[in-house]
Amino acid sequence: MVDSGIDAGILDTFCGHGGRVDAARAAFGGADWIDLSTGIAPWSWPVDGLSLGLERLPEPGAIAALEACAAAAFGADPAGVVAVPGTDLAMRVLAPLLGARRAAVLAPGYAGHRAAWPDAVAVADVGEVADHDLFVLASPANPDGRVADPAVLRGLAARMMVVVDEAYADPAVGLCGEASDGLIVLRSFGKFYGLPGLRLGFVVTGPGLAGRLRAMLGDWPVSSPAVAIGTAAYGDGDWRAAQAGRIAEAGAQLDAVLDGAGLAVVGRAPLFRLVGCERAIELFAVFARHAILTRPFAGRPDRLRIGLPRGTVEQTRLAAALAEFRT
Amino acid sequence: MVDSGIDAGILDTFCGHGGRVDAARAAFGGADWIDLSTGIAPWSWPVDGLSLGLERLPEPGAIAALEACAAAAFGADPAGVVAVPGTDLAMRVLAPLLGARRAAVLAPGYAGHRAAWPDAVAVADVGEVADHDLFVLASPANPDGRVADPAVLRGLAARMMVVVDEAYADPAVGLCGEASDGLIVLRSFGKFYGLPGLRLGFVVTGPGLAGRLRAMLGDWPVSSPAVAIGTAAYGDGDWRAAQAGRIAEAGAQLDAVLDGAGLAVVGRAPLFRLVGCERAIELFAVFARHAILTRPFAGRPDRLRIGLPRGTVEQTRLAAALAEFRT
Repeated sequence: MVDSGIDAGILDTFCGHGGRVDAARAAFGGADWIDLSTGIAPWSWPVDGLSLGLERLPEPGAIAALEACAAAAFGADPAGVVAVPGTDLAMRVLAPLLGARRAAVLAPGYAGHRAAWPDAVAVADVGEVADHDLFVLASPANPDGRVADPAVLRGLAARMMVVVDEAYADPAVGLCGEASDGLIVLRSFGKFYGLPGLRLGFVVTGPGLAGRLRAMLGDWPVSSPAVAIGTAAYGDGDWRAAQAGRIAEAGAQLDAVLDGAGLAVVGRAPLFRLVGCERAIELFAVFARHAILTRPFAGRPDRLRIGLPRGTVEQTRLAAALAEFRT
Repeated sequence: MVDSGIDAGILDTFCGHGGRVDAARAAFGGADWIDLSTGIAPWSWPVDGLSLGLERLPEPGAIAALEACAAAAFGADPAGVVAVPGTDLAMRVLAPLLGARRAAVLAPGYAGHRAAWPDAVAVADVGEVADHDLFVLASPANPDGRVADPAVLRGLAARMMVVVDEAYADPAVGLCGEASDGLIVLRSFGKFYGLPGLRLGFVVTGPGLAGRLRAMLGDWPVSSPAVAIGTAAYGDGDWRAAQAGRIAEAGAQLDAVLDGAGLAVVGRAPLFRLVGCERAIELFAVFARHAILTRPFAGRPDRLRIGLPRGTVEQTRLAAALAEFRT
């Protein structure tokens, strides 16, 4: 095993969340970084020319229209779809409303779940959930891409609250059509639409919890740009279909590049691949030397998550870095 | 007293919050409404040409830079300045962190204070605060514009937590320079900068509470546009000074128009005037017939709040409506 040459403290910086390009530039130098450390689509819904409405507070009717457009895209009842300023912040507001005393959270998983439910017990598999009153999981899971069996989740939801984070489910509708006060689905706007800086997400639930959450969030839960862009983008079915095609094609190309380098994909979601590799930290370091940021994980030196390259230029740089890793 | 001709239920719509122009259009017809129902500056900081960074999550360094720029504008210690997605939502997250058991809130006041501290006792004057452990007030107060004596608030803060909502204090620095874990100041970006749809505000406190609040809000407390626009705008001292001049001038012109109509101003802040008038609901209705939205208050049919007209055209329409009210 070759030494990666990376200080443990510096590595930690990149294990918490993806997207730390400023920190990567500071740690490794280089310019023109390619950020493959997130599961965010590298193509963004085209905002140009849309009026963002910054000069006015969003009005109730406009927020309701956004929620109706999102509900149509999710196949959900609009009465249970609540616009939130990102699901990460929403979970922290939602957790006290649910009032669980014996929560369980799927591990490995998204750090934000542990932040919102710090007392939750970690379980490695849905089958380990027992006498809990709340179960939190991402499906597809992050970083391993596992999709939970809907029938199993339905069964759990019959005896406890279930929070399913479908941040990486797009373009699938997942469980949104079955959401209730006890089966709560989280949806992210920014990942599929390539606009994470907007901070827009949705809690999809039943009308009862939706009403309590709306009351908690107040009259201006999201920004005017989030209302304007979200409403237009969810209404743009053609773009949604085209984006799904781009994601599938780039994913297949990434699979081919990784396969060509002899790397095993041990987990996958439309927007990322999880590589299993004994020398994953060394691989992270090789990518960093090529100004490509990927996502390592604390305590798992044998895993590296890689997002979708945007196009030929990025694929070529990825392949060049991999060629160096092999030799 | 002349009947206002307004249904009580319709009037209620406009008593909750300002800014309901869609509802006004639906209730009264008319086009080209002038919205004087809020205390938001009618001139906006010029966003054109600024990159909003929607394609990326805001990075920690960029959020810290925003907080440092805001701290400089407020005369506060950057370590205690926390960016939040609007102070209305922030208060709802802040309240459980403070854990008060006997809160008092100044009344009349901002509806959001009551929403965040629903069990608070209403007090009509700072002097009535007694054996409470938290006191929440706006200074300048909304809608009457009262500014609390800083010495009195310092005295209160020595024996209880004090939350001072300085949403209407700009361009004054207020108490930001004295903020601590027990003297918490809230600042709004959107009102003074005329960009309320951005949803950006700040909690100004001590490093201890700031740290707990940051942990609660997570890594992406505000949007990328909020980071980009807020950083640039707080760094633009020339525009800030010019805006203060515009606000002062428009306020003086509004005073003259109201005085000419024989209306008494019983409360004021830089961005609004509170009119005391037995026929305030009739006055609201007259304005509405001229497609001018103002702000009535539930239970106070003798009060109407009026924001700043943007320029000559708006002033002229306001004066024409007032001429009809007098005759």
